Amino acid sequence: MTKILRILISLLLITLISASPLFSFEQRRTRVDLIVRGGKFVTMDDARRVIEDGALAIQGGRIVALGTRAEVDAKYTAGETIDATGKVIIPGLINTHTHVPMTLFRGLADDLDLQEWLTKYIFPAEAKNVTEDFVRTGTQLGLAEMIRGGTTTYCDMYYFEDAIAEETAKAGVRGLLGETVIRFPVADNKTPDDAIAYTGRFVKKWNGHALITPAIAPHAPYTLTEEQLKAVRAFSDRTGAPIVIHVAETRKEVEDIEKEHGARPVAYLARIGFLNNRVIAAHVVWANAEEIALLKRLGVGVAHNPQSNMKLASGVAPVPQMLAADVAVGLGTDGAASNNDLNMWEEMDTAAKLHKVSTGDPKVISAEQAFEMATIRGARALHLDSQIGSLEVGKRADLCIVDLDDLNQTPLYNIYSHLVYATKASDVRTVIIEGRVVMRDRNLLTLDENGIKVRARAFRERISRSLAP
Amino acid sequence: MTKILRILISLLLITLISASPLFSFEQRRTRVDLIVRGGKFVTMDDARRVIEDGALAIQGGRIVALGTRAEVDAKYTAGETIDATGKVIIPGLINTHTHVPMTLFRGLADDLDLQEWLTKYIFPAEAKNVTEDFVRTGTQLGLAEMIRGGTTTYCDMYYFEDAIAEETAKAGVRGLLGETVIRFPVADNKTPDDAIAYTGRFVKKWNGHALITPAIAPHAPYTLTEEQLKAVRAFSDRTGAPIVIHVAETRKEVEDIEKEHGARPVAYLARIGFLNNRVIAAHVVWANAEEIALLKRLGVGVAHNPQSNMKLASGVAPVPQMLAADVAVGLGTDGAASNNDLNMWEEMDTAAKLHKVSTGDPKVISAEQAFEMATIRGARALHLDSQIGSLEVGKRADLCIVDLDDLNQTPLYNIYSHLVYATKASDVRTVIIEGRVVMRDRNLLTLDENGIKVRARAFRERISRSLAP
Repeated sequence: MTKILRILISLLLITLISASPLFSFEQRRTRVDLIVRGGKFVTMDDARRVIEDGALAIQGGRIVALGTRAEVDAKYTAGETIDATGKVIIPGLINTHTHVPMTLFRGLADDLDLQEWLTKYIFPAEAKNVTEDFVRTGTQLGLAEMIRGGTTTYCDMYYFEDAIAEETAKAGVRGLLGETVIRFPVADNKTPDDAIAYTGRFVKKWNGHALITPAIAPHAPYTLTEEQLKAVRAFSDRTGAPIVIHVAETRKEVEDIEKEHGARPVAYLARIGFLNNRVIAAHVVWANAEEIALLKRLGVGVAHNPQSNMKLASGVAPVPQMLAADVAVGLGTDGAASNNDLNMWEEMDTAAKLHKVSTGDPKVISAEQAFEMATIRGARALHLDSQIGSLEVGKRADLCIVDLDDLNQTPLYNIYSHLVYATKASDVRTVIIEGRVVMRDRNLLTLDENGIKVRARAFRERISRSLAP
Repeated sequence: MTKILRILISLLLITLISASPLFSFEQRRTRVDLIVRGGKFVTMDDARRVIEDGALAIQGGRIVALGTRAEVDAKYTAGETIDATGKVIIPGLINTHTHVPMTLFRGLADDLDLQEWLTKYIFPAEAKNVTEDFVRTGTQLGLAEMIRGGTTTYCDMYYFEDAIAEETAKAGVRGLLGETVIRFPVADNKTPDDAIAYTGRFVKKWNGHALITPAIAPHAPYTLTEEQLKAVRAFSDRTGAPIVIHVAETRKEVEDIEKEHGARPVAYLARIGFLNNRVIAAHVVWANAEEIALLKRLGVGVAHNPQSNMKLASGVAPVPQMLAADVAVGLGTDGAASNNDLNMWEEMDTAAKLHKVSTGDPKVISAEQAFEMATIRGARALHLDSQIGSLEVGKRADLCIVDLDDLNQTPLYNIYSHLVYATKASDVRTVIIEGRVVMRDRNLLTLDENGIKVRARAFRERISRSLAP
């Protein structure tokens, strides 16, 4: 028996040794959740690496490997693999400013003065229609549109932001979501104090969530007193919540703030100690060189909304100067009532073109810079650049697989030109957020597109009736 | 036998009389080639009629009836019927300025000064690559992209225009196609005289064609002498051919022409008797009030190219002033090397927004005016408004059936806002030109999309190699 046992043990050892290369190879191949392989990876890392025939491995919602297909294949195996051959893989786009439920007001009133638009249409429409149910439907509509266009993170300012957070988390989209604080009574809160209290509960509920960053959103320097703005900043200091605010959108705002506070909006906010590296300032159309230096020094993020600024005739933000000063400026669509869509591809294209014509310099913002503002610089604007904005190991796995060879994209010479000047939202094929596939081959996996449309149209009827004379 | 015959005749008469309501009803229903029924018809006729649940009958390439579905159904029956329920039916879009084969240079060089872009990239690339075969492939690529975006008529200026005409006619697209006349030697003709002789044969060949309007295209006032411009005008007078020309695109051109001829470009061209109601002037970025009055008085059509003017930092054309003076101004994409696509939806959106921000007046160009420039006013710019540009009985049957309820289009409040600010090229479903369906449910019926892409990519390799140092 001992002899037979000894022979059997010997045989077993021989088998193991002879099989060892395969065995140890399999040991070395780490199993991950998802691998995207093939295609051109535009990383937007510091070196601006573009990897041809690349691959990316995702585990636990994060990027764990990135390299050529051969490199990743040698080390990783996955439960699910997506073939991206012939396509371009980009960091998910970051929409740094919107009011997502306002998709339900898309096209409600256009071609009007900002004041007329707000006071005759938007504010009355909001007063009569904004409920938690409205906000949920509008959010779903906006999320579906954003996913289809490759937006994986958005920064919001609206009412019932807790409902927005619930819908956003359910859809699997990343959001920095700010509850509005404004001096007049609104749908969810009647006073700024109420709004701050609401936001306290909101922040507590969502802090630490993988997708949602709860924030506080004081509407603008002209719709809150100095004291109220200071209370918001104190709240942010206490809770660590980011602050989302409209700043210096119109010339009138600059004149009004200057008259009331003896300083232009950015300078005024800096003076009262409101600005810091948790603030995201939307628009900043009217800022001079000193104010731009302040934004940089204080680490304020800026959301540039070229199409909204054009449509409402607000002006042209000094973005070339901001980029020269290395301000963290991202791109935003603004709400769909003033754009009228949530399409980041058009914002990139418009941003590059608008500043060329307004400065008379066709070199002033390159395609690569426009793409940077929609990705890694947008992440900086939201103070989330350690987590998102580029394809890098350790970052959240937020990415899009985009067609490279639609007719409007043929032929291809330069990838950044291609992405900014020729690619459309409809070229986005597959979207992954926090490692989860939320759109596959243009099919939404986390939202019911038809149901959303039916509910949105029902709201449209109610909204139209509510504004009838 | 006579009795039986009499009985048989009586029976036949009774049968005929009893069946008469049906019989005469069938008689009254005229049989046509094609009926499009259901949906919202945006006619762009003088009354700007929008017909809900409408229908349109097409016979011999022309619109023979238009009204509510009930009205058309009562009078017409068709071999083929297209159901457009839930969609919007619009006049085919008119791209008033492009260089269609330049799709092959899309993204070749961007973010450069106009001079650097032209002299270092575009002119060398053209000198080394433009052949009749290049032109055919580039034209097919551009035609496919235009059809997919709902463009049914385009105005072109390039070389080997006869080959462009052949490809355009084959694809079933309408074109006003201008052969280039320029003072230096180019791919197809070595002198302006050669080019005029070529155009003579070209015009003779295509005159009277249902789709093609042959034209002569003197490049610009700064690339031809006064004498050469006068020879072109004489050619146009002799043949009736329209004239396509770049005018006042850049400030530098204005300065140069002023220095050489003592007048700004529009004034100079008027003074030498060049301008009339067969001329289509592209760009006209730099025109003062007097020049705008000249354009109106002389009946010159203008092609406004907002995205190209922005990208090349050429300036902002005085379009609000032109509209106030009722100049026939349409929209154009310019060549894909300077845009970088042939997307009229983005031109409409950009036109409305650009003029708002540049004038500071959000009311200055409405969505309806932008849509008008892409349809009926664009037809006027091409001097083809008796034939195309609106849905009216007697006009050519050029129309698009467009989705109304994509996510980016939900909900719908105002149809013009909807079309200009929210609708994308990818929302176009079906395109009919001269009564022929050239795209059905996004499938191109007259062009081989994959073959075009393969050939375009082969040209890209050659072009890249030709520019390598």
